[in-house]
Amino acid sequence: MTKEQYKLIEEYMLQYVDKAAHDELHTYRVLNNALKIAKSYKNINYDVLITSCLLHDISRKDEFENKKLCHAIEGGKKAYQFLINRNYDVNFSNHVKECITTHRFRSNNQPKSIEAKILFDADKLDVIGPIGIARTLMYNGQFNEPLYYLDSQGKIDYNVNFEAKDSFLKEYNYKLTKMYKIFYTKEAKRLSRQFKKVSEKFYKNLLKQIEINEINNIKFDD
Amino acid sequence: MTKEQYKLIEEYMLQYVDKAAHDELHTYRVLNNALKIAKSYKNINYDVLITSCLLHDISRKDEFENKKLCHAIEGGKKAYQFLINRNYDVNFSNHVKECITTHRFRSNNQPKSIEAKILFDADKLDVIGPIGIARTLMYNGQFNEPLYYLDSQGKIDYNVNFEAKDSFLKEYNYKLTKMYKIFYTKEAKRLSRQFKKVSEKFYKNLLKQIEINEINNIKFDD
Repeated sequence: MTKEQYKLIEEYMLQYVDKAAHDELHTYRVLNNALKIAKSYKNINYDVLITSCLLHDISRKDEFENKKLCHAIEGGKKAYQFLINRNYDVNFSNHVKECITTHRFRSNNQPKSIEAKILFDADKLDVIGPIGIARTLMYNGQFNEPLYYLDSQGKIDYNVNFEAKDSFLKEYNYKLTKMYKIFYTKEAKRLSRQFKKVSEKFYKNLLKQIEINEINNIKFDD
Repeated sequence: MTKEQYKLIEEYMLQYVDKAAHDELHTYRVLNNALKIAKSYKNINYDVLITSCLLHDISRKDEFENKKLCHAIEGGKKAYQFLINRNYDVNFSNHVKECITTHRFRSNNQPKSIEAKILFDADKLDVIGPIGIARTLMYNGQFNEPLYYLDSQGKIDYNVNFEAKDSFLKEYNYKLTKMYKIFYTKEAKRLSRQFKKVSEKFYKNLLKQIEINEINNIKFDD
């Protein structure tokens, strides 16, 4: 790809980025992660990989506006149409579509090509470690979800089962802790391990810092 | 104070809490911290301390809506009026007002009474450590401030001087790192030290994880 082609795709992406956790900074980090992972492989189609990374979240806002839509499937279609309209060939456009369609966690569409696997892993590297925690908290702030809920005794409610209302505590336990096992590539596995411990320590200390014990011991007058 | 009096003040507070970083969970944590710190002292006026903690942020939303207002000064006035209207005596109401008026970081109004110092420290304990980082990130998400900005080379802009646009990177360097030195009470100093290292490690690893180096090495076709 030429620099001009890159700029065209980048500008298209910039029209569709969302805020906070899914802003353009996320997209650039995913591209950066993908290029890091790709170094361990030969015969990577870099044009497909770069294009897929830049366009992988262009339907995020569509999903936020209509929860029935899957941003991976919608984004794949939208990217395909964009590329075909700009005279990219069908094979190339289809390959990008495959990568975007299969980049989603919690999906039955598994990535097949190496470029699709790299995009998947590059995107998930942005969900683990400190950056995963930071993005989750920004998301909580954006959608007015609290850090945790209190139970009827005024203590932190650690029963964050699937039906529980959304909070940081729930998302951390339901998603973030499970992300370390889902990588396809060796390099992503290696990178993810680097950041596991620091995240666990942060979470453990967060809980320690927010423990509510004293309020229940207030001695009221009769 | 009786349990009924506590409930009355708590219910008044709940009408005025803000979202995310300044929700009622923050208020309960501040009260909890204050009770923890107070244990090291004799002759604490617990009624003043508890009332001040519960009401310390009741003018947060007023400040968000009108940036010229100081939530500490406004909150002090509002709490005084609330208490006088409910037949609390002038001395008590004035003492609560003093505590709330002087609880703000970056203020010339220094806390004088021990209860005021404890409220100040209890509130600042919620700005340091993992909870301080978490609340800052939620605030960033709520007000659509990014984690960081990119410079003209597409790299993370670490020049977060005072004039820089608001971001997590700026707030961390401008505020969070400086909070460990501002405590009045020994117990708050001790508690704050516990959480310093884990915060620094989190921040250091966050930077490591978001480093953008590969994109600048993309080899474009001519």
